[in-house]
Amino acid sequence: MPTIDILLPGFAIDTDQGYPAFCGVFLVRGADATGRPRTILVDAAHVGRRPHLWAALAAHGLTAADIDTVVLTHAHWDHVQNIDLFPRAELLLHGDERRYAHAPHSNDWATPAWTGLLLEQLPIREVADGEEILPGVHVIALPGHSPGSIGVLVDTDAGVAAITGDALHFAYVATTRRNPLVFWDAELAARSIDRVVGAADVIYPGHDRPFRLTSDGAIDYQEPFALTVTGLRPDTEGLAFADGSSRPLWVMPGVDEQRTLYEKNAEEARRRMAGVPRVVRPR
Amino acid sequence: MPTIDILLPGFAIDTDQGYPAFCGVFLVRGADATGRPRTILVDAAHVGRRPHLWAALAAHGLTAADIDTVVLTHAHWDHVQNIDLFPRAELLLHGDERRYAHAPHSNDWATPAWTGLLLEQLPIREVADGEEILPGVHVIALPGHSPGSIGVLVDTDAGVAAITGDALHFAYVATTRRNPLVFWDAELAARSIDRVVGAADVIYPGHDRPFRLTSDGAIDYQEPFALTVTGLRPDTEGLAFADGSSRPLWVMPGVDEQRTLYEKNAEEARRRMAGVPRVVRPR
Repeated sequence: MPTIDILLPGFAIDTDQGYPAFCGVFLVRGADATGRPRTILVDAAHVGRRPHLWAALAAHGLTAADIDTVVLTHAHWDHVQNIDLFPRAELLLHGDERRYAHAPHSNDWATPAWTGLLLEQLPIREVADGEEILPGVHVIALPGHSPGSIGVLVDTDAGVAAITGDALHFAYVATTRRNPLVFWDAELAARSIDRVVGAADVIYPGHDRPFRLTSDGAIDYQEPFALTVTGLRPDTEGLAFADGSSRPLWVMPGVDEQRTLYEKNAEEARRRMAGVPRVVRPR
Repeated sequence: MPTIDILLPGFAIDTDQGYPAFCGVFLVRGADATGRPRTILVDAAHVGRRPHLWAALAAHGLTAADIDTVVLTHAHWDHVQNIDLFPRAELLLHGDERRYAHAPHSNDWATPAWTGLLLEQLPIREVADGEEILPGVHVIALPGHSPGSIGVLVDTDAGVAAITGDALHFAYVATTRRNPLVFWDAELAARSIDRVVGAADVIYPGHDRPFRLTSDGAIDYQEPFALTVTGLRPDTEGLAFADGSSRPLWVMPGVDEQRTLYEKNAEEARRRMAGVPRVVRPR
């Protein structure tokens, strides 16, 4: 059966001066229909975790060249920036997300205008709901947080595991059922949460530790928390700690015009998609 | 006389799971030779500080359209990613840095292969040591941390201020005189520290608060520390704090072959530079 390893854990930590934005990065290993072993990376994190990603691969006996497939749950900056490390890999993402990334809304702070240039550095295969990546490894469409958010369902020994990306950032979202950061459609995002919580025995969220929901709906984390912070002490003068056990709901200003703009910009997006020079060469 | 405001403060905070990488972002305001007021942004931070940068501009009564010039101290990811917010601005950086960013070393985790695609989104003016940006605002070349690191010297009411980028990350470096993160040349980096410390009354480091050196060489910070962290408590189980008052010296593996590669890749870099599609349009 396919397996999941956590390469880089996701963290639900923010600051008032910027987002550390440490998403989970996962290794899914299985075999293709012919029995050949395949190694899949789900999400790639941002540049600030690049040395840590190298080290995590090495700790699993791997190098970047061993990654056959990179799946992006969505195109936000903190999930995509290290894809250029894997020039042997095919990049899988939802077609709606790819197209959007080439002409994002100007209020979308998580998808800079240059995101499309970055994505096209690898050969892309667009995937959709239900698509098999490997036997026992499937795409689940989870739109709402972004236009083409997807998750990865993995049939493991421990049951069905869902890697959700930011369709479900934090464990508590499985109980509130509202996405705290909506760049596309809040109602769609809520339905996606319902769907993935219903489909999975174990959830690997975008920015939190893997968990199960107990029979009475409580969060049962599957991994301990571990983090060392350098350059701060708990008693540093001027340092304050705030509760993160729930977050205000934020919907991007302009979200109502998103669909219209998306259609309006379709041709421009496709033109841009075709015109990106490849500076990352296959090796 | 020209003035400096801190738009986003720099922080000397790291973690064992990734770099928050919050660099200082500065507003330099002055008048050109004809007396016309000009507004300069020095460094742009990474995407995780984009909403905070918008808010900081607004708090200074500005929008992105008011920025005439963006100066990049160097091309590392955490200093450059928000330049697309300023499509009316001219981008100033050292020619060596621009060229390097189009063909960076594969061990250079701070300069992804796609960095050049990002930089070319604004019209670029290459600058060199001693160049006047405005009367009282000059470029100082500070190579070593990266090939074309520069600082900005500003003649202010409080004396000569130096915005150093990561030629001087942290205040303590003004006393140790060694750059803790070298991607190009450690000796050159050490000479750049000597030079900028000698040239300035007040130093605005890349990842720390502005400071003066007292007559006995102690660090005299000019601003208080202030940071709120969400999602952690001082007593979170598994959370540890490590001292950041000095850092191990790190030199990029492969740094000895850097110059050779830089020359070897010159033509490739110039070809790439000329072939980047502009997805950020002037407005």
